[in-house]
Amino acid sequence: MHAYRSQTCAELNKAHVGQQVRLSGWVHRVRDHGGVLFIDLRDHYGITQVLADSDSPVFAEVEKVRSEWCIRIDGTVKARDESLVNPKLPTGEIEVYIRDMEVLGAAEELPLPVFGDQEYPEETRLKYRYLDLRRDSLHANIMLRSNVVRSIRNRMWDSGFTEFQTPIITASSPEGARDFLVPSRLHPGKFYALPQAPQQFKQLIMVSGFDRYFQIAPCFRDEDPRADRSPTDFYQLDLEMSFVTQQDVFDAIQPVIAGVFEEFGKGRKVDAEWPQISYRDAALWYGTDKPDLRNPIRMQIVSDHFRGSGFAIFAKLLEQDGTEIRAIPAPGGGSRKFCDRMNKFAQEQGLPGMGYIFWRDGADGMEAAGPLAKNIGPERTEAIRSQLGLGVGDAAFFLGGKPKAFEAVAGRARTVIGDELGLTDKDRFAFTWIVDFPIYEKDEETGRIDFEHNPFSMPQGGMEALEGDPLEVLGFQYDLACNGYELVSGAIRNHRPEIMFKAFEIAGYGREEVEKRFGGMVNAFKYGAPPHGGCAAGIDRMVMLLADEANIREVIMFPMNQRAEDLMMGAPSEPTNEQLRELSLRVIEAGK
Amino acid sequence: MHAYRSQTCAELNKAHVGQQVRLSGWVHRVRDHGGVLFIDLRDHYGITQVLADSDSPVFAEVEKVRSEWCIRIDGTVKARDESLVNPKLPTGEIEVYIRDMEVLGAAEELPLPVFGDQEYPEETRLKYRYLDLRRDSLHANIMLRSNVVRSIRNRMWDSGFTEFQTPIITASSPEGARDFLVPSRLHPGKFYALPQAPQQFKQLIMVSGFDRYFQIAPCFRDEDPRADRSPTDFYQLDLEMSFVTQQDVFDAIQPVIAGVFEEFGKGRKVDAEWPQISYRDAALWYGTDKPDLRNPIRMQIVSDHFRGSGFAIFAKLLEQDGTEIRAIPAPGGGSRKFCDRMNKFAQEQGLPGMGYIFWRDGADGMEAAGPLAKNIGPERTEAIRSQLGLGVGDAAFFLGGKPKAFEAVAGRARTVIGDELGLTDKDRFAFTWIVDFPIYEKDEETGRIDFEHNPFSMPQGGMEALEGDPLEVLGFQYDLACNGYELVSGAIRNHRPEIMFKAFEIAGYGREEVEKRFGGMVNAFKYGAPPHGGCAAGIDRMVMLLADEANIREVIMFPMNQRAEDLMMGAPSEPTNEQLRELSLRVIEAGK
Repeated sequence: MHAYRSQTCAELNKAHVGQQVRLSGWVHRVRDHGGVLFIDLRDHYGITQVLADSDSPVFAEVEKVRSEWCIRIDGTVKARDESLVNPKLPTGEIEVYIRDMEVLGAAEELPLPVFGDQEYPEETRLKYRYLDLRRDSLHANIMLRSNVVRSIRNRMWDSGFTEFQTPIITASSPEGARDFLVPSRLHPGKFYALPQAPQQFKQLIMVSGFDRYFQIAPCFRDEDPRADRSPTDFYQLDLEMSFVTQQDVFDAIQPVIAGVFEEFGKGRKVDAEWPQISYRDAALWYGTDKPDLRNPIRMQIVSDHFRGSGFAIFAKLLEQDGTEIRAIPAPGGGSRKFCDRMNKFAQEQGLPGMGYIFWRDGADGMEAAGPLAKNIGPERTEAIRSQLGLGVGDAAFFLGGKPKAFEAVAGRARTVIGDELGLTDKDRFAFTWIVDFPIYEKDEETGRIDFEHNPFSMPQGGMEALEGDPLEVLGFQYDLACNGYELVSGAIRNHRPEIMFKAFEIAGYGREEVEKRFGGMVNAFKYGAPPHGGCAAGIDRMVMLLADEANIREVIMFPMNQRAEDLMMGAPSEPTNEQLRELSLRVIEAGK
Repeated sequence: MHAYRSQTCAELNKAHVGQQVRLSGWVHRVRDHGGVLFIDLRDHYGITQVLADSDSPVFAEVEKVRSEWCIRIDGTVKARDESLVNPKLPTGEIEVYIRDMEVLGAAEELPLPVFGDQEYPEETRLKYRYLDLRRDSLHANIMLRSNVVRSIRNRMWDSGFTEFQTPIITASSPEGARDFLVPSRLHPGKFYALPQAPQQFKQLIMVSGFDRYFQIAPCFRDEDPRADRSPTDFYQLDLEMSFVTQQDVFDAIQPVIAGVFEEFGKGRKVDAEWPQISYRDAALWYGTDKPDLRNPIRMQIVSDHFRGSGFAIFAKLLEQDGTEIRAIPAPGGGSRKFCDRMNKFAQEQGLPGMGYIFWRDGADGMEAAGPLAKNIGPERTEAIRSQLGLGVGDAAFFLGGKPKAFEAVAGRARTVIGDELGLTDKDRFAFTWIVDFPIYEKDEETGRIDFEHNPFSMPQGGMEALEGDPLEVLGFQYDLACNGYELVSGAIRNHRPEIMFKAFEIAGYGREEVEKRFGGMVNAFKYGAPPHGGCAAGIDRMVMLLADEANIREVIMFPMNQRAEDLMMGAPSEPTNEQLRELSLRVIEAGK
């Protein structure tokens, strides 16, 4: 017989009754039923009930075991009494009578129980991660993550993509976030950097003549802590394709992502239609560039109804350049209580409030209520109702000013309204491509033009477009939003050196600086660069959505805490003097 | 029609004759056949011959294109004349008459041609890696690597292993080599380290209750340059299993590796039998712990034949403690010329020389030749011949002294003899497990006992063994050699804290130091650690063997040069003052 097990803890059933078996695993739970000791023995695969009665030659030893000891037992499989069969457990038909036992690894008193669902402080969970990982839900999340990555890989291979690993120790490349640096011992005073993303490498792979690249790629950013992201690194499904248009990229990635969500979504609906919405429409309709389309509410411009109306605040506002009034329709929100709550929400978010109108059954049929309705009068109120397609029992909220100032709050209000009114279908994954991002934005304070997103995107209209108003230039650049999260981001790249230099020039970067910052890639473009594009999809985010977890640390095996510390391994830590000397470095005190 | 292509450059054949097609790719070669321009158009998939005659509306533009320009052409597929069909090319039956052309990416003068096999200095190849990668052989190597990794992954999944990613930014862990350090910005003066291997993490995964882990894992070592290894990082197939014996690990990995070599070995024979040879036998028989079993030569101890013999050098040597005489049999090496050459080889390797005997047809039948035979006389000579199983036309070489002093040279001599005599079958992959490594070794100078290999291995015989002579303790530790290279290394781990502390104590490490160095893992072992073991297989090495490449940079997409520089991306480079300030670091000049 094998040294440790003849079966796993998930294998035994009625067919094994009478057999001598050997199992190894952890003591999940011990119950003492008056002279009979029941142990739920747990391994990676499942749980088997084993027991020792006073006839067992090792009863005395079994009495000593405690939770989470790792043990091996030998025993006889017996059928459970019909009334004791546990249909929820694959091994629920049997139990094993222990004849021999060996302690493989004893356990000290546990800082964190494995059995049960008791909440524990995150710091304890991270320090004793190996105990936390034995718990059901975390174990399941980590297995889910692994299976998702496997499925992505298979789907990518099956779609004709090839996985290549790009360097992890490489050059600093200021792509937006802060690099992690790695001092070079062989070249004192010089540093490598960990890649923020394989952006330049994947483009170089295309210039190297490969056609469809992907990678489950680690990305490193030295970012300040935030609850929903890892402070050090994260994983992307990174892909790039040559000789493609934007639609080709969409057609390549959609079946992969949809397939993964169908495979692991536990029956939640996965939308087959992925609408393409322009960045500007998304801002207007949803107040965000990562809209949650499970929520059917779409905002509208209603400025005309307020221009010169009796609602002085809006009427005045509209006299200023660049202002608008937008409405958030709220089907089913037609009560003063609800409207007041939403108004208060807007105030909590830093706005003066949201005007509203709601419609109810009155003495003479439908009646519009709320102070705003009174101020603008019945005709304008009716015109608004008609534009928004609302009726009795519905409400509409109104926000005015320069869109940038209220758009984000409007977006959040839309989310709250959708949630509170039960309009948002929680058992669904809704995807939407956001397209036509502007290439540039203007800094309101300095008036300077800078890149809005990724400086490597091809401007729509090419060189010609760059010769017009930069703020009008749109890029072949796109995001995929799912349920309100950005899941994918990508672009058709600017592969023509002359257009790239021009694009950077508009943002104030000279030729020399571009060559210095992105030399590896820009040089390559001088030797026959193919048109290419791609995208990157966040693995952590995908698993979070599938596992329905809001905290990224629930889907990573060994995460850092929010202060970027590994409490289990004790990182970061102080280097030895020898290490510093070898690296020609000295630590200086803050402020010096 | 698609913006860039209706087919790839490998798709068109006779069935497409008459069709209007669109192709994109690189100009592999241009030939001007008196008014007809032939272009071999190349993409990732293949090559298609396209041509423009003076009737082509874009003849003048086609005339301008140069090697490695990236172009799109539209044209008509025509059948080649029977005499011009190229059966080696999938598209060899057709050619495409160009009707329209677009330059997608022009190329400056090439620092490195893509067409042809001309050798170029490695520094040029690395700086313009994107051109080098367009060349056939490197392109093929990189695709091979990717396919090998894919195959490994599938085989591991199919064997019930699950892939998990372990942290890349983690704690310094002195496992032997030098760590790459990463300064922490949020914790001034503290550093992370890149993992030399996921050793501690994979063991923690087992303690966390997962059962069969694997990972294609990046490993980082700040090592001094050497030709056959990357100076920064390399990839391992890393695996670990719970509740296993050494044989279980062998049974898990053998089918994976054998399968990969069969799949990608291009018909070379893959041995099905993988003998297990003890570390001591390997040293004796092959002079190395990574023997090449394609070479049938096995060395033997022949001390007894020389003890008190007329060959004074050996006879005297044998009077000292710990000395031995070993023979390298050389079937077919029976000529003075060959024997003298081998003797010279040994001298070049720093030994005084190798004595030899060879057997030839003499006047009275078989005759032993060489000075050594004369010195020891016919009886002893015959006894040696008989022990070694040699005959006419064969030779034997002799080395004496303390084995450690000559073993390595003996091993190299065995290799040269096998190669020169054609005994080594080059078209074969021969595997052998080396087992029973000693846990400790004694430093000859200081007399100190230290770990021979990995300090985390379980000693055979457990605690009891550690209480005897440490130099006699063998570990459950193993390597797999293939064709003379170490391909895999692994162990059954020491999962019992008390045995681990004892093992470290023997090597002079106190409890406190062990807790400090390996705290993350040692603490975990206190909470119910399962017996576990595993191994790691070198991906780069595996691909090198399959691609028959001796230089690791031929199987890595974007490698560093031997001075750990990335010439294409310009890494490492000087940080900005701002970066150093944020990290609270100052660079000090060498020697200060």
